[in-house]
Amino acid sequence: MSRIGVLHPGSMGISLAASAKATGHDVCWASAGRSMQTQERAQAQDLTDLVTVEKLCKQCDGIISICPPVATEQVAGAVAGFGFDGLYLDANAISPQRAQAIADQTNAGGGHFVDGGIVGGPAWEAGKTFLHLSGPRAAEVGEWFRDGLLETNVLGAAPTQASALKMCFAAYTKGTTALFFSILATSEALGVREALVKQWSRSPQLAGQLAERAGRGAGSMTSRAWRWIDEMEEISRTFVDAGLPGGFHVAAAEVFRRCESLREKQDPSVATVLQALLAKQGDGEAA
Amino acid sequence: MSRIGVLHPGSMGISLAASAKATGHDVCWASAGRSMQTQERAQAQDLTDLVTVEKLCKQCDGIISICPPVATEQVAGAVAGFGFDGLYLDANAISPQRAQAIADQTNAGGGHFVDGGIVGGPAWEAGKTFLHLSGPRAAEVGEWFRDGLLETNVLGAAPTQASALKMCFAAYTKGTTALFFSILATSEALGVREALVKQWSRSPQLAGQLAERAGRGAGSMTSRAWRWIDEMEEISRTFVDAGLPGGFHVAAAEVFRRCESLREKQDPSVATVLQALLAKQGDGEAA
Repeated sequence: MSRIGVLHPGSMGISLAASAKATGHDVCWASAGRSMQTQERAQAQDLTDLVTVEKLCKQCDGIISICPPVATEQVAGAVAGFGFDGLYLDANAISPQRAQAIADQTNAGGGHFVDGGIVGGPAWEAGKTFLHLSGPRAAEVGEWFRDGLLETNVLGAAPTQASALKMCFAAYTKGTTALFFSILATSEALGVREALVKQWSRSPQLAGQLAERAGRGAGSMTSRAWRWIDEMEEISRTFVDAGLPGGFHVAAAEVFRRCESLREKQDPSVATVLQALLAKQGDGEAA
Repeated sequence: MSRIGVLHPGSMGISLAASAKATGHDVCWASAGRSMQTQERAQAQDLTDLVTVEKLCKQCDGIISICPPVATEQVAGAVAGFGFDGLYLDANAISPQRAQAIADQTNAGGGHFVDGGIVGGPAWEAGKTFLHLSGPRAAEVGEWFRDGLLETNVLGAAPTQASALKMCFAAYTKGTTALFFSILATSEALGVREALVKQWSRSPQLAGQLAERAGRGAGSMTSRAWRWIDEMEEISRTFVDAGLPGGFHVAAAEVFRRCESLREKQDPSVATVLQALLAKQGDGEAA
């Protein structure tokens, strides 16, 4: 049994914590400065509260970092700063380049970096959420979740393959979501939205699904668009570094940026999203 | 019965010619300077050969222009130059802006521009190929194909809606094709292609289809990529003009550009395509 610290138990993090608990580990968190909502999540899963990140780093054998892409270095830096020398799992949606930088920082501080990439939503159902792992000690991290609902997959010893896989996977799912809404907005601006949806409904394969999607609420996108902005920029960097054009996801980032203001809105309609997308018409970033 | 001239009976054009023939029209073409393959197509459908574009313009009530996006103005200009004063159907994959420019040119020359946008492959099966039409005289052009396999749909009197619809439809189908291959190439460069395809196969909805696609030949893309380059650039312009980011399809154009050299290759493998996509690594256009 290990002591594992979760930074920070949001909706995804708490599900990883639950899988580690199910495997028999003492899963800890740091309550200082966290919201009431996070507090409730941690209590519901009976996590051990070590109050501060410093104590978490000093008393745990492993740390799990789950945070928005832009905060990853800062979180890793804080942990290294407290002299953490255990296994450090970064399970965030970041480019391999950024993962490598964090690995260097972590390892230089005496910790042991393991790269993680999560595919799927919070792990409350077996076979639906996958944690890909890579790095010399990836298998040890995989063991943390052995008896839980989270499915783990060790890719190999290379230090950043898990991030690479996450980027490639999200590139399609979120990239096509952004593309879908930008097409609908273009069709709206040009007066052919209804005709487009009708044509989609008559076309085979993928396109039929688009017509159905155009008739649903857009809340599953708008509630998460704010944190997909940076993820799209990470994907764009990943593509460019691999020698492919980065423009798909620069455009996708801009689409999600325009939807940021809808974050708190309860399941807004597609029409509301299109309004937000077209409101910035003429903005220099559009090109 | 009208005399309708088809410029030029390629694989799509000949199917429109067949639908117009089926409706009872005298469908003509101009053989001067055309290939043996085009000759054979025209003869197989028993089209009337008026030899030159000039005669076609002088003797026909209607002209159908089907050509690559970049040739559209030139073709329309030639027709206007011969004093054509009938119905001019431009059924090409062009932006609404370009359609408007051609409409102005055509109408100024005494002709009557009708905007067309084709969704689907050559019309040899009912309910599979759609010709969207717009403009004040769109309904008259719709009548040309009444008894054929091509399905027509009049969008309204606005001069460029058919092109707008075509751009929006192709934005998804071809945009996601380019995205798919650029993701696969990125995963290849980063050493996670196999893991990605496996993850796709385990993920719901769209993603399962990606795994299947990654295992097929890529010939349906490589045989057509050369003419999708300009189409992607037209779509990008359409997006930007509507106030949306144009980067998706600038990137898609670059992906197809890198596949241009595979045009004549018989159904190349995905691996061959990835090689072509990654060969230009470091190229300034990649960003």
